Amino acid sequence: MQTPSYEDLASHYTRLHHFQHLGSIVGWDQAANMPPKGNEARAAAMSELAALMHRMRTDATLGERIARAEQEPLTDHQRANLREIRRDWYQANALPTELVQRRQMATSRCEHAWRSLRPANDWKGFVEHWRPVLAIARQEAALLSEQSGLTAYDALLDRFEPGMTSVVVGRVFGEVRQWLPGLIQRVIDKQSKEPVLEPVGPFALDAQRALCQRMVRRLGFDFDAGRLDTSTHPFSGGVPEDVRMTTRYREDEFLPALMGTVHETGHGRYEQNRPRDWLGQPVSEARSMAIHESQSLSFEMQLGGHPGFAQVLAPMLVDAFGGQHAFEPVNLHRLLLRVKRGLIRVDADEVTYPAHVILRYEIERPLIEGQIEPEDVPALWDQKMADLLGLDTRGNFKDGPMQDVHWPESMFGYFPCYSLGAMYAAQWFVAMRRALPDLDARISSGDWVPLFDWLRDNIWSQASRWSTDELAVRASGEVLNPAFFKAHLEARYLS
Amino acid sequence: MQTPSYEDLASHYTRLHHFQHLGSIVGWDQAANMPPKGNEARAAAMSELAALMHRMRTDATLGERIARAEQEPLTDHQRANLREIRRDWYQANALPTELVQRRQMATSRCEHAWRSLRPANDWKGFVEHWRPVLAIARQEAALLSEQSGLTAYDALLDRFEPGMTSVVVGRVFGEVRQWLPGLIQRVIDKQSKEPVLEPVGPFALDAQRALCQRMVRRLGFDFDAGRLDTSTHPFSGGVPEDVRMTTRYREDEFLPALMGTVHETGHGRYEQNRPRDWLGQPVSEARSMAIHESQSLSFEMQLGGHPGFAQVLAPMLVDAFGGQHAFEPVNLHRLLLRVKRGLIRVDADEVTYPAHVILRYEIERPLIEGQIEPEDVPALWDQKMADLLGLDTRGNFKDGPMQDVHWPESMFGYFPCYSLGAMYAAQWFVAMRRALPDLDARISSGDWVPLFDWLRDNIWSQASRWSTDELAVRASGEVLNPAFFKAHLEARYLS
Repeated sequence: MQTPSYEDLASHYTRLHHFQHLGSIVGWDQAANMPPKGNEARAAAMSELAALMHRMRTDATLGERIARAEQEPLTDHQRANLREIRRDWYQANALPTELVQRRQMATSRCEHAWRSLRPANDWKGFVEHWRPVLAIARQEAALLSEQSGLTAYDALLDRFEPGMTSVVVGRVFGEVRQWLPGLIQRVIDKQSKEPVLEPVGPFALDAQRALCQRMVRRLGFDFDAGRLDTSTHPFSGGVPEDVRMTTRYREDEFLPALMGTVHETGHGRYEQNRPRDWLGQPVSEARSMAIHESQSLSFEMQLGGHPGFAQVLAPMLVDAFGGQHAFEPVNLHRLLLRVKRGLIRVDADEVTYPAHVILRYEIERPLIEGQIEPEDVPALWDQKMADLLGLDTRGNFKDGPMQDVHWPESMFGYFPCYSLGAMYAAQWFVAMRRALPDLDARISSGDWVPLFDWLRDNIWSQASRWSTDELAVRASGEVLNPAFFKAHLEARYLS
Repeated sequence: MQTPSYEDLASHYTRLHHFQHLGSIVGWDQAANMPPKGNEARAAAMSELAALMHRMRTDATLGERIARAEQEPLTDHQRANLREIRRDWYQANALPTELVQRRQMATSRCEHAWRSLRPANDWKGFVEHWRPVLAIARQEAALLSEQSGLTAYDALLDRFEPGMTSVVVGRVFGEVRQWLPGLIQRVIDKQSKEPVLEPVGPFALDAQRALCQRMVRRLGFDFDAGRLDTSTHPFSGGVPEDVRMTTRYREDEFLPALMGTVHETGHGRYEQNRPRDWLGQPVSEARSMAIHESQSLSFEMQLGGHPGFAQVLAPMLVDAFGGQHAFEPVNLHRLLLRVKRGLIRVDADEVTYPAHVILRYEIERPLIEGQIEPEDVPALWDQKMADLLGLDTRGNFKDGPMQDVHWPESMFGYFPCYSLGAMYAAQWFVAMRRALPDLDARISSGDWVPLFDWLRDNIWSQASRWSTDELAVRASGEVLNPAFFKAHLEARYLS
């Protein structure tokens, strides 16, 4: 078959991928290794690379080359790749350079100001820097909406979660909103009658590091194709052949570092198991933010909250820190499932987490659509925190609408992905139990390989071969269905 | 002053520098961090970057832009920068792409074969792979010689040591050759009468790492602008704002890791102290390989072999490993100065090292000039090892002409820089003692700052501002003079 335009596009994207590889490694290095005085030169070098990649993505001939390739006789896989190439091209070219530059300036100013205004609880000062960010985001949304026919908010959401719309998110979150506050209350009531022993520290950092390495290995991560290091803000980066995960340690507690590492390992294994034959091409990329999060949450919540996980972990803790009663499996399992209403999203447990996300979604959508303004946010925040979590947040902006970096950085449309990921994870485990009737017995006996194999075959290896909906149908028999998430929470926290 | 062509060239080189920054960090990461399965993708990404930088260096318009800039009214500093830009441009454009590609193929094949042929002591097999490398090197040398008017060997030497010629190297090495074998014998006779206690291991790796960090700090390296890590082959990389040094540790001995680190710190401080205002421009680059080596050897040999160094080191060793008699300053000093004839260049001490280099120079020059062929090398090697070091190397190719990676990689012209560096280092210390009459007392009392300040003012901050000869004259009052090296060896090893 003659596919010269397609082949030519594919090599263009392979070259782009090589530059992404470099950016990903120096980005990881910046977070994990770089000494402070290296920052300015590094930023200049990374921005040179970003400009080069932007030029490659906005090459004036690309649109025509894509159109020509679409006329060529392609395999299904090539056609899926071309669909993803068109999507990448659309994303890179949809906005005028001038607008992209203004957004860059506004968000970097706002993010910089936010770093000091947040600790100072200075909402008014923050709004001054945030207003231009929002104005530009609305312009972006309007432009993207005009081109795509999506609504303004959906046009932003689509950047992180292709194909997802606020009709679906609104329906799903609307349902969750109905039963979540009641469920939280029941879980807290139940847990108040179950005593939990706190582990007694300090926990030596070397022992924690060794424990995390051991757990990551246990979770099937390939250390010949990746690393686990330390950084202030844990993340996963690198490339599929060399995945870089980070975590952070504190001497007084080990569970946050350990479970953060379990979370990142879900991301890491997805990356390591993207289809080898297609690496470098857009079709081999992870499907979406929600699907990525469904993997980290499959590891951290679905597996990590399983009673079998505590059974495997218990002897590892004794090896690492010596024995103590808090490490007994029943107690450990309770520790891992403990639910507590709190102000901070990133500290939230599996049950209260969706409340934080729903609240943000219900505020950022009307913000983008122009139904509310920044000065309306605190009152809405207070009211929704009271409704959803029964917490009083009045006057506390720093642990309220100023707590996340997403809004200062104009990442409107990102928040829903966290909870969509949790829902997909629950849905995967229902499908997995259908395929593997003895799954729970296996998890309890420490045989986690069938679980990983299912995820590899149904999610990791599929990458961007299908739309998200089709991926979900192929993996689980239906598109996103939040009923599985509710059933999961009830089974795990109330039975 | 209107200097549009110059300014335009300067931004071109700033952009190139940003890409070099990325290459340097991912190159360091490859050596210090990268897991094995990352290698293929990393090599592809780095080669994409190398191709991009090569395109930037060989841009068809550059020659004319340089010529135009040379007509503009420039400051002395700008003119020096333009001279270095022309040099870089010449180096990148002097050879046809086809020849560069053939060299790349031949050297990578030869280097790959060498890895297994060396341990197998298979000289004949090696020559088969090496012959094409040499043939291409001769073609390169002929082409460069035609363009530059230099002799064939000098045209290769000039790539590593701008301005140096075999007339000078031949004269200098010819002199050293006269007195070196006799000096080695006298030193060995003298040392045979001085008992030396061996330190008793094992030496815990953590303690060695902490000791090296402490010494590097003591040597003035700025850890806010650099790091010390571990790699199989120690080196210095990174950028001036973020210097990456590596070393390697063994439990049974600590001196190689420690003194290797002292060596790299000399390179590292040169890099950290290149002129800030000009970073990114060719004039801010290190002057040459020999000048760089003169800095690592100023640290490792001139300072490290000083009796004052052992005095400072002794209590640090006691802190690191606990006390033992071998750590007493007089014994430590003897350990650091021990001279022994050996087959391997990289294991050689300061006194026997030049013999290894002279031998290689006396073989590679006639090889490039076509006076001898690869099959002549072993007999020459045997004869020169017997003359210079009194060692019998017959039939031992793996510890003979196959021991270094330089020849398989076609780095003809590199070897002389090692010993020229040692000679420059001796020359710097003579000039330093003139400027700082109490230098030795200060070194002995642990006050090393004046030494570093002299190097900073006279070498590091001068970067490529001057030709090497002019740099030497400004720093020490004369061009390279090997008499200082002889005097240094006699004073240190025979007095």
